[in-house]
Amino acid sequence: MLGKKELLDKIHHQLIVSCQALSGEPLCSPFIMERMALAAQEGGAGGIRANSPADIAGIRRLVNLPLIGLYKAEYEDSPVYITPTMKEVRELMAVHPDILALDATRRLRPGGVSLEEFVRRIRRDYPGQLIMADTSCYEEGVRAQELGFDLIGTTLSGYTEYTRDVKLPNFALIQEYAENLRTPIIAEGGIWTPDQLQRIMETGVWAAVIGTAITRPREITRRFTKSIRELHL
Amino acid sequence: MLGKKELLDKIHHQLIVSCQALSGEPLCSPFIMERMALAAQEGGAGGIRANSPADIAGIRRLVNLPLIGLYKAEYEDSPVYITPTMKEVRELMAVHPDILALDATRRLRPGGVSLEEFVRRIRRDYPGQLIMADTSCYEEGVRAQELGFDLIGTTLSGYTEYTRDVKLPNFALIQEYAENLRTPIIAEGGIWTPDQLQRIMETGVWAAVIGTAITRPREITRRFTKSIRELHL
Repeated sequence: MLGKKELLDKIHHQLIVSCQALSGEPLCSPFIMERMALAAQEGGAGGIRANSPADIAGIRRLVNLPLIGLYKAEYEDSPVYITPTMKEVRELMAVHPDILALDATRRLRPGGVSLEEFVRRIRRDYPGQLIMADTSCYEEGVRAQELGFDLIGTTLSGYTEYTRDVKLPNFALIQEYAENLRTPIIAEGGIWTPDQLQRIMETGVWAAVIGTAITRPREITRRFTKSIRELHL
Repeated sequence: MLGKKELLDKIHHQLIVSCQALSGEPLCSPFIMERMALAAQEGGAGGIRANSPADIAGIRRLVNLPLIGLYKAEYEDSPVYITPTMKEVRELMAVHPDILALDATRRLRPGGVSLEEFVRRIRRDYPGQLIMADTSCYEEGVRAQELGFDLIGTTLSGYTEYTRDVKLPNFALIQEYAENLRTPIIAEGGIWTPDQLQRIMETGVWAAVIGTAITRPREITRRFTKSIRELHL
């Protein structure tokens, strides 16, 4: 396993490709996500972001890029779904993600657990593990830095109740993070074109994550079919 | 099976998604191509273009869209590789593609067979089968219309020795076809953005095919990683 500095260096200025397909989506299958990740590696990706122990274990077999692991799970008593409880953390850690990603919004987790308490538990049980904060707004980025996250992502901008009106990619938030936080920033969320990616990389972020525009053919198809419908042929 | 007119009506002004992964590519697997085609259908595609009897048979099980079938095979005595001989035609016809696509360039096929002779053999053995001409330049489109092809595609523009310098998508050829040929035109080749697709649909083509930009994550990743390298960070 690489040390923290080596690992961060490996993803510096790189594209990280998110390879996810949830239950009910046509590509939901560890077999397919492994191949998707391999395609991303062959296309020059510097890292992979993936969901669930099954997908991550599969991807590990085929690719040798740094892996950001998360585990989506829904609970009735909280809107937090990206690695919400220690149960998901434990199952994820069994497949050794290089970086553990988790919801780092201000919202309480299942069981009323605060982000502060959750980070304390992770640090206690898994000292030395790199952790990435999935945040939605500037205050959450500042708080994540105070809590000692190793990487801060804009992943959840647009996906919390109080940010759902922002336009993605959220260039303003990305720029604010890159200019004011000293923790490495991972730009993520709604990047669809090479032009957008270039503009984002030029803000000084550490790396960027693209998922849907590369690995979700249903959503890519929708973007094109919508453009035809707009013509009213 | 739909009649010719019903079938053409079903794909009129629609996006056809090409779902192909050749041997050696990370996604090469009928299981994955089936799911890719399902993703395209759920995303609003009006048709699927696919390669090989195995992929087509699989896709048929999961999707109920019109299917354009082709069968790529390489021969030593000809550069023609899209459904080059009657052997590929026979194997393809066993899985009943709604439309049979084939190289319709001026080049001789394996065994020195001309396009004219090849079309005659297909019409003799499979009367009533809809056939699509994969062409590379205007003269080939005119000839395909004379030969009675049911659909004419720009698929091979940029992929024959005498067109390899054209920039894709080949808007000029698409427009020339749409304005001058009475056979339904299928725009195909190098469409990467919704803007390009809109511009193409407005020329009056019957439908458009997009493959790489939707179903080849390795190439999509390459397009993004190349844009980062251009920044010289």
